[in-house]
Amino acid sequence: MQPNDLLTGDLRIGVEHRVRFCRAALEATSGTTPPIVEELARLPRTATGFRPRMLPVVDGGFAAANPDFAARLRRTIESAGSAMPAIDEPLVVPGGEGSKSDPAVLESILNALDRGRICRQSVVLAIGGGAVLDVVGYAAAIFHRGVRLLRMPTTTLAQDDAAMGVKNGINHRGKKNLLGTFAVPTSVLCDLDLLGTLADRDWRSGFAEAVKIAVIRDEALFARLERDAKAIRERDRSASEPVIRRSAELHYRHILEGGDPFELGTARPLDFGHWAAHRLESMSNHRLRHGEAVAIGVALDSTIAMLDGRIDETTQRRIVATLLELGLPITAPELDDLDGLMQGVEEFREHLGGVATVAMPIRLGASAEVQPPGREEVAAAIAILQR
Amino acid sequence: MQPNDLLTGDLRIGVEHRVRFCRAALEATSGTTPPIVEELARLPRTATGFRPRMLPVVDGGFAAANPDFAARLRRTIESAGSAMPAIDEPLVVPGGEGSKSDPAVLESILNALDRGRICRQSVVLAIGGGAVLDVVGYAAAIFHRGVRLLRMPTTTLAQDDAAMGVKNGINHRGKKNLLGTFAVPTSVLCDLDLLGTLADRDWRSGFAEAVKIAVIRDEALFARLERDAKAIRERDRSASEPVIRRSAELHYRHILEGGDPFELGTARPLDFGHWAAHRLESMSNHRLRHGEAVAIGVALDSTIAMLDGRIDETTQRRIVATLLELGLPITAPELDDLDGLMQGVEEFREHLGGVATVAMPIRLGASAEVQPPGREEVAAAIAILQR
Repeated sequence: MQPNDLLTGDLRIGVEHRVRFCRAALEATSGTTPPIVEELARLPRTATGFRPRMLPVVDGGFAAANPDFAARLRRTIESAGSAMPAIDEPLVVPGGEGSKSDPAVLESILNALDRGRICRQSVVLAIGGGAVLDVVGYAAAIFHRGVRLLRMPTTTLAQDDAAMGVKNGINHRGKKNLLGTFAVPTSVLCDLDLLGTLADRDWRSGFAEAVKIAVIRDEALFARLERDAKAIRERDRSASEPVIRRSAELHYRHILEGGDPFELGTARPLDFGHWAAHRLESMSNHRLRHGEAVAIGVALDSTIAMLDGRIDETTQRRIVATLLELGLPITAPELDDLDGLMQGVEEFREHLGGVATVAMPIRLGASAEVQPPGREEVAAAIAILQR
Repeated sequence: MQPNDLLTGDLRIGVEHRVRFCRAALEATSGTTPPIVEELARLPRTATGFRPRMLPVVDGGFAAANPDFAARLRRTIESAGSAMPAIDEPLVVPGGEGSKSDPAVLESILNALDRGRICRQSVVLAIGGGAVLDVVGYAAAIFHRGVRLLRMPTTTLAQDDAAMGVKNGINHRGKKNLLGTFAVPTSVLCDLDLLGTLADRDWRSGFAEAVKIAVIRDEALFARLERDAKAIRERDRSASEPVIRRSAELHYRHILEGGDPFELGTARPLDFGHWAAHRLESMSNHRLRHGEAVAIGVALDSTIAMLDGRIDETTQRRIVATLLELGLPITAPELDDLDGLMQGVEEFREHLGGVATVAMPIRLGASAEVQPPGREEVAAAIAILQR
C-alpha cells in the first residue's frame, strides 16, 4: 500500500439531446408516418424477442380540453404494429405547479410505473405543461435509476423553454425544485397543434420566457415580439409559431453549447428575472403562473438594469411595453412585501451555492453576470413599475 | 415550419471518478496533510468569498464502534483552517439494508441537508457501509439536483466493491433499488484503518464480492483468495488488504472501461451470482447480509455453470471451498422455496428491461453473458450444494 494509492480517470458520456417540432404528431398526414411513431421507432431495441412498454402520463388540464386524445394516441400506436411499445392506460395527473408540491402526485406516478412494469428499455410519455413534465421527468429519472422519457409539451411555456431543458424536479419543504436531477430526455416532440386548446391566460404566459431570452440573447427576436405582440396575444399562429420556435432554439443552444448543462458553476445565465419570479410564485401561493412571475421579474430586473445605467430608458420602456402588449403583468401585490421578495436572492444563492450572480441586460440581445441587486435598488425599481 | 424540424446534438460530459486508498485518513502522520483534508482541498472553489459547508452522515454501526470519530473529524477539519468547509454536527443513521427500505431515513437526511443549508458547492460526507452509502448518495444526488458527495466506506464490502460504483438507491414497494440514480461521487476515500472495528460477520461478508470478481475476471486474485482464505478470515491485514485493493480496482476498472457505466444495455457483467443474491436478501427479510447472499449466489451459479459444462468440477469445488474457508455460507433455508427464488430472475430482468442475460464463469478469471438459468438447473444445483 502506497501512501497515495490512487485510482483516477474520467468517466465520459455523450447523450443525444433531440427536440423535434411538428404538427399533428398522432396523424399519418398525406401517407407519412405519424411523428410520434417515428420518434418511438428510433429507440434502440437492445433486447430481441422482448416488447418494451409505454406509460402515458397526461396533464389533467390538457386531458380535460382534449377528451379524445388518449384514444387517438392508442389507435396511432397500436396501428403501427409490434415495432411500437405496448401502450398502457394513461395516468392523468393534476396540472400546474401544485403537482410538484404534492407528494401524492409523485407517488401515484411511481406506483403506475411499477404496476405497468416499466423497465429500463420502456418509455414514459409525459404529455403536459412544464410542471407536469418536471414531476413526471423526476419520476422517470429515479425509477430503476432512470427509464426512457419522451416529452410532449402542451403549453407555450413548455414548448418555448421548459421542455428544452435537461432537468426535472419537485418542490419539497416549501422550496421550489429542492429535489430533482439532471437527465437528458430520450426525445422531445413539440406538436404546435397541441397549443390550440390552451386557455388564453396560459397561452400568453409562455411568451414571458421568449421576451426573457430575446432581451438577453437575440435583438431580432425582441424586435419581432415587439412588432407582433398584439397578434401573438390574439393567437395568430403565423405570428406566434416563429417566436416559440426561435425561443426554443435559443434555450436549446444554451444547454448544448453553454458549457455548463448541469449547472456546476455559480451562474445560471438564462435565468434573467428568475430570482424574483421564483419567489413571487411561492409568495402568491402559485396564484401567479410561472410565466406571469417571469414577466414581472423581467420588468423588475430591466428597471434595475436601467437604474444601474446598464441599459437606457428607451430600452427599458420597450421591454415593459412589449410585456404589457402581450397581455402579461409587470407588477403584483406581492411586490409590496419587500422583505419577503428579497428572500428570493437568498434562495437563488442557496440553490446554486456560493455567491451567485444574476444575468442583467447590457443592451437588447446581450447580458452580463452581475452581483444580485440590493434592497434599495429593488425598492426603487418597484416604485417605477407601480407608477 | 418544416415537416421535420429538428434540433439535435450530443450533450457531452466528462467527470473525474476518483478513489483513494489510505490509512489514518484523519491524521497528519509524520508531518503530512491528513488524507481527508487533501481530498477536501481539491474541490473546486467556484465562488470566492464564500465558505461551503459539509454535513457528515454516519452509519450507526460505525458510530457506535468508534465513539470518538466525530470529534476527531471535527478537530482535523477545523485545524486545517478556512480552506476547509464549515463542518456541521454529524447525522447518525441506522446501518444495514433496513436504512434503504425505511422512508424515514431518507427524509431525515434530506431534512438535515436543508437545515444545514447544503448547497451545490457544499459537501455531504457519507461514512458507512454499502447501504448507508447508497441512501446518503441518493439524497445527495436529488438534493438541489445533486450536491457534492465524499464517500468514506467503512466495511470490507463497501471498500472492495460498493464504493467504487457510480450509482445509489433505495428500496421501494418492497423492491431492492427500485429508486435511485447514476451519479459519480466527488471523491471516494478508502481508509483501511476504518475496517478495524468491523464485526467479524461483516468483515467476512465483504470478501464474497472479491471471490465473485476473481472468478469472472482475475485468476491470480482467485488463487490468492484460495491460498489466504484462512488468514483473511482471521483478519490478517497483510493477507486481506491486497485482496480488498485488487477487488476494488477490478470493480473500478469495469466502471471506467466497461463501456456501459450507466447500464443502458441488457447486461450487468459484474453481477455474477446476483440474480439469486438480491432475491435471497429480500426472502430472508435481510437476515442474510448482502455479502452472504452473494456468497450463496456465487456458489449456486458456479454449480449451474458446472452442470452446463461451462466450468469443470474441480473449478466449482475450488470456488465453493474458498467461500467456506472464508467463513461464508453456500446455502440458506430460503433455497427450499424454489418458486420464490426463481422470481429473482424476473426481478433482475425487470430492472434492466428486456431479456436480461447473466454472467457465468467459463473458466477461472473469465465469464460469458448467457440466458438466465431455468428452474430445473437451479433445483439441481441447490441439491448439490445442500449435500
